[in-house]
Amino acid sequence: MRKPQRATVEGLPERVTIYEVGPRDGLQNEDAIVDVAVKAEFVRRLADAGLTTIETTSFVHPKWVPQLADAAELLKLIELPDAVRAPVLVPNERGLDRALEAGVQEIAIFASATETFAQKNLNSTLDDQFAMFTPTVERALAAGLAVRGYVSMCYGDPWEGDVPVDQVVAVTKRLADLGCHELSLGDTIGVATPGQVIDLIGGLQQAGVGVDQLAVHFHDTYGQALANTLTALREGVTVVDSSAGGLGGCPYAESATGNLATEDLVWQLDGLGIETGVDLEKLVATSVWMSQQLGKPAASRVVQALAG
Amino acid sequence: MRKPQRATVEGLPERVTIYEVGPRDGLQNEDAIVDVAVKAEFVRRLADAGLTTIETTSFVHPKWVPQLADAAELLKLIELPDAVRAPVLVPNERGLDRALEAGVQEIAIFASATETFAQKNLNSTLDDQFAMFTPTVERALAAGLAVRGYVSMCYGDPWEGDVPVDQVVAVTKRLADLGCHELSLGDTIGVATPGQVIDLIGGLQQAGVGVDQLAVHFHDTYGQALANTLTALREGVTVVDSSAGGLGGCPYAESATGNLATEDLVWQLDGLGIETGVDLEKLVATSVWMSQQLGKPAASRVVQALAG
Repeated sequence: MRKPQRATVEGLPERVTIYEVGPRDGLQNEDAIVDVAVKAEFVRRLADAGLTTIETTSFVHPKWVPQLADAAELLKLIELPDAVRAPVLVPNERGLDRALEAGVQEIAIFASATETFAQKNLNSTLDDQFAMFTPTVERALAAGLAVRGYVSMCYGDPWEGDVPVDQVVAVTKRLADLGCHELSLGDTIGVATPGQVIDLIGGLQQAGVGVDQLAVHFHDTYGQALANTLTALREGVTVVDSSAGGLGGCPYAESATGNLATEDLVWQLDGLGIETGVDLEKLVATSVWMSQQLGKPAASRVVQALAG
Repeated sequence: MRKPQRATVEGLPERVTIYEVGPRDGLQNEDAIVDVAVKAEFVRRLADAGLTTIETTSFVHPKWVPQLADAAELLKLIELPDAVRAPVLVPNERGLDRALEAGVQEIAIFASATETFAQKNLNSTLDDQFAMFTPTVERALAAGLAVRGYVSMCYGDPWEGDVPVDQVVAVTKRLADLGCHELSLGDTIGVATPGQVIDLIGGLQQAGVGVDQLAVHFHDTYGQALANTLTALREGVTVVDSSAGGLGGCPYAESATGNLATEDLVWQLDGLGIETGVDLEKLVATSVWMSQQLGKPAASRVVQALAG
């Protein structure tokens, strides 16, 4: 299989951790409801391809996300090496109860950086969402869990348009202060450009949130994800969210493309000589297999180029 | 229509010239043969959207590229403002004769950076291709024409794999020495990553070819085009090739995606506050119209997101 020619660039990290979101963020946004055994096999294959952090599912109420109603059952089917982290999304205390019952060791919570999305997604205000998060995070930390905080709509909101940097910094800082060990800055609708990325990371550093606490989560809806990721790496970020095969459409734009595809990311990182531990050939095979399960081609351009 | 939030980045150019290749490189690589009146309308609309450099067609022999057999007829139909440059591709002296007859003021020639592609595309060797170019360029310059030199397979070759930087530098330097005013560095199969871009531009500078003479031409086959373009801008390049709607598949990879889409590029440049003169809304409308003529959706992610 073709591989990128290697050429390093000064000032980039030696190693990047890929936070794989395909099984959760990807499958949550696909129309098809995938059989739990297929999901378990998907997670197993991702780990076998070298991914060390795989967000496997969500304990959101099945009424809202029927695609992930099998969360507890899935976790029973998954057996991963100790070195592989398998966080799950938890929307609130009820979700945390279910996650604890399932023996989960790491959770993620999902915050909004904008008033309108807080209203639409959480039925809350920008401020009040923390009333929901605070007891959830406190109890999770007390139980010894690690907690990741997602911040969504960091670079643009489908209803409000532009989003002020200060507003995103404030939400992110509050999550950090709550005790989230990692903050994932989401470009939920995929509109960001590199200057915004630099401004937000800079604003967070001024507020005392260092790059070592940050992850970036770009969507490729406008084709900008990889350029923004490269920009974040230059700023010192070393954790990047992506989805195998580019799984998961964008729920807030009329486009088939949502998450940055893990393969497109790995192609760039391999070319730059940045270690990820991922075997691209195995990963492409996994996404081809998953696309067959879903009955539609993978959105990843690398998968299309190598497997097409 | 949604617009990117503006945030500038230090060290990037204030203005970028987009060299639009849709009518030539795009349509040459589409299966459909488009009516000459539609092509003329396409070029007119591109100019109306603010593109100032539009490669309109090619005087290659119709046997090789039937899609562009109407080159002379098309040029008769096109009336553009004086400020718009309309170069045409010319493979050899016979093509130059036809271009001169049509009153063309600017041409482009197409060289290979690899032995195998020189053989397959030009039926020549890496060295002997210059025997074809030299009289063509000399006569063009004597007739007062500007000559752009394309260098293809700069970052990888489908048959040879990796391509040494020195080899690309040597071919590019020879084209510069022949009198090409602009050298377009082509990632013909879309495999490049940012380190390669920096290495090639650096190698060319050492050989005396400055960034002011360079254009970059990335394909999005592996999703890398925009990150590579951003990298080239940081290195000082200010001319970027792209194709409206992402027109033109990749002839050397099993993928639907070839040229970087002009809309995806403009989204990034608009977000960065870099002037291009392009009206994104008009451009998207043009690509939607063209996709209707071709009976297939535009490959551009921005077009899909905004017009989907």
